[in-house]
Amino acid sequence: MIIDKLIDRIIELQNPTVVGLDPDPSYIPPCILKNSAHIHSDPMRALMHAIFIYNKMIMDALHTIVPAVKPQMAFYEQYGAEGVACYIKTIEYAKKMGFIVICDIKRSDIASSAIAYANAYLGEVDLYGHKRKMFDADFITLNPYLGYDAVEPLIKQAREYDKGVFLLIKTSNPGAGDIQDIETNQGKVYEIVADKVSKWGAGEIGSYGYSRVCAVVGATHPGQAEALRKKYPNIFFLVPGFGAQGGGADDAAVCFNPDGLGAIVNSARGIIAAYAQPGYKERMPDNHFDEAAKEAAIKMRDELCQKINMPKEKM
Amino acid sequence: MIIDKLIDRIIELQNPTVVGLDPDPSYIPPCILKNSAHIHSDPMRALMHAIFIYNKMIMDALHTIVPAVKPQMAFYEQYGAEGVACYIKTIEYAKKMGFIVICDIKRSDIASSAIAYANAYLGEVDLYGHKRKMFDADFITLNPYLGYDAVEPLIKQAREYDKGVFLLIKTSNPGAGDIQDIETNQGKVYEIVADKVSKWGAGEIGSYGYSRVCAVVGATHPGQAEALRKKYPNIFFLVPGFGAQGGGADDAAVCFNPDGLGAIVNSARGIIAAYAQPGYKERMPDNHFDEAAKEAAIKMRDELCQKINMPKEKM
Repeated sequence: MIIDKLIDRIIELQNPTVVGLDPDPSYIPPCILKNSAHIHSDPMRALMHAIFIYNKMIMDALHTIVPAVKPQMAFYEQYGAEGVACYIKTIEYAKKMGFIVICDIKRSDIASSAIAYANAYLGEVDLYGHKRKMFDADFITLNPYLGYDAVEPLIKQAREYDKGVFLLIKTSNPGAGDIQDIETNQGKVYEIVADKVSKWGAGEIGSYGYSRVCAVVGATHPGQAEALRKKYPNIFFLVPGFGAQGGGADDAAVCFNPDGLGAIVNSARGIIAAYAQPGYKERMPDNHFDEAAKEAAIKMRDELCQKINMPKEKM
Repeated sequence: MIIDKLIDRIIELQNPTVVGLDPDPSYIPPCILKNSAHIHSDPMRALMHAIFIYNKMIMDALHTIVPAVKPQMAFYEQYGAEGVACYIKTIEYAKKMGFIVICDIKRSDIASSAIAYANAYLGEVDLYGHKRKMFDADFITLNPYLGYDAVEPLIKQAREYDKGVFLLIKTSNPGAGDIQDIETNQGKVYEIVADKVSKWGAGEIGSYGYSRVCAVVGATHPGQAEALRKKYPNIFFLVPGFGAQGGGADDAAVCFNPDGLGAIVNSARGIIAAYAQPGYKERMPDNHFDEAAKEAAIKMRDELCQKINMPKEKM
């Protein structure tokens, strides 16, 4: 089951982290941008080339260290069809390099639209009777505001094609509480969502005891994350907010169970743009951005692994 | 202001409806599918051709009757880059034909990802210093679960480029209440969201008294819609759920203010696949799908206009 494959890979590499492939053009090293502009005179083609090469070189540097990548759709979709083609190319390369791929799309829709997203990201679409995989993610992120019938087609497709989903429970942004922290007579809204996610995934538990129906729980709210961790031992967490967003290793560590598992911690800018940050930029020119990413990924892994007791052997 | 332009067009055509361009392949008339397969041997190219011709012929039939179209992104995005290219082509054609375009994307993301979506759908992206409009929607739909800082970049871009947003308050699906109807000590969750939407849009009111920060309120919950209508006279509603989803003209009519304005009612299948429905299919072969759509759109307009007092003159 995909959740077991993800955990296997985490244990193999002794690294419960995922790198966000968020190619904000301001992160792309000038050397890559310049080189791409020499190859393609059309600025759209040049930028798509730059994004792919940037992603590729980071993946080449990290594939023996980091188990998963999380390409954030917004940074690709903003460039329309060309951006989506680059997104798919990035996913394909990531899988070829052995990464588990979490497509960060945060989609939410109902009825036949939900089915269309399920077919696109997890299953297959039909082209005049020819079945074709389009995005072929291992996992996707989803927004739960529309309720179960908006999520059910994606869970169904996840079961059929052995994929997984991460439902947003508590996001890492400063305004996360606006809706998620509203008090009800059964706890806060995000706590009720967590309860639903737990129920929705109850029939989908893998060998390590975690469901393929997972959750996003930000590292920027460690008290809440810790309480969720204790209450729902079977939910696997994707933990954003580490590093640039302010969460530290201690904050992220509360998202793990005593078994040393149960979470994967994301960092994007802190890894992929490490080369531009203090401690790296003094030592490394921008064309060593991949080495800087590798160093930052190892540092993140080591900081986090000091705080948790990861099992040494796969099941 | 864009919200005034939408209302102007509604009054001009005496029609407060929007047609969902949701090209589920099962809706596309066999004649179009067959013809496209003769033109393109590649099934992806053939299907994209079929979708665009289907959309185009419907828009050609409706542009003097219906003020707006709402292409649902899921039905395009499911075909990857080719689908997104077809989505953009559909938007461009819709604008050329004088429709206001509501991109139904239901996006939700934070920080620089929210900015990327804002640039893509409402503003401009930067390609090596060249500014380019990508989707150039008039309005987009957004999911509010992540809170204000996830919505703020889109409202800011809407202000700068004179665009609008529809925040999901109460969706039309059967499970809408799972999260949206949770009881709190300040009312249900969707009521708190409505309150926030009202505040977020307070500084963005146009000449007719409606904000460019609008809301999605389903016709399948008429009691709730009526209460929201009375409490928030300045919020303009996009009303899904009419027709195929079970909402009737009476249910939709409660979404209007006494001024005869304040809402636009969506129907997709009921219009674009009218040709396959009882009352049409006996009289009209599938290659008359555009005439069936026109007839169904006029019927919907007339049913709805009987229930409301739309102003006869623009301001």
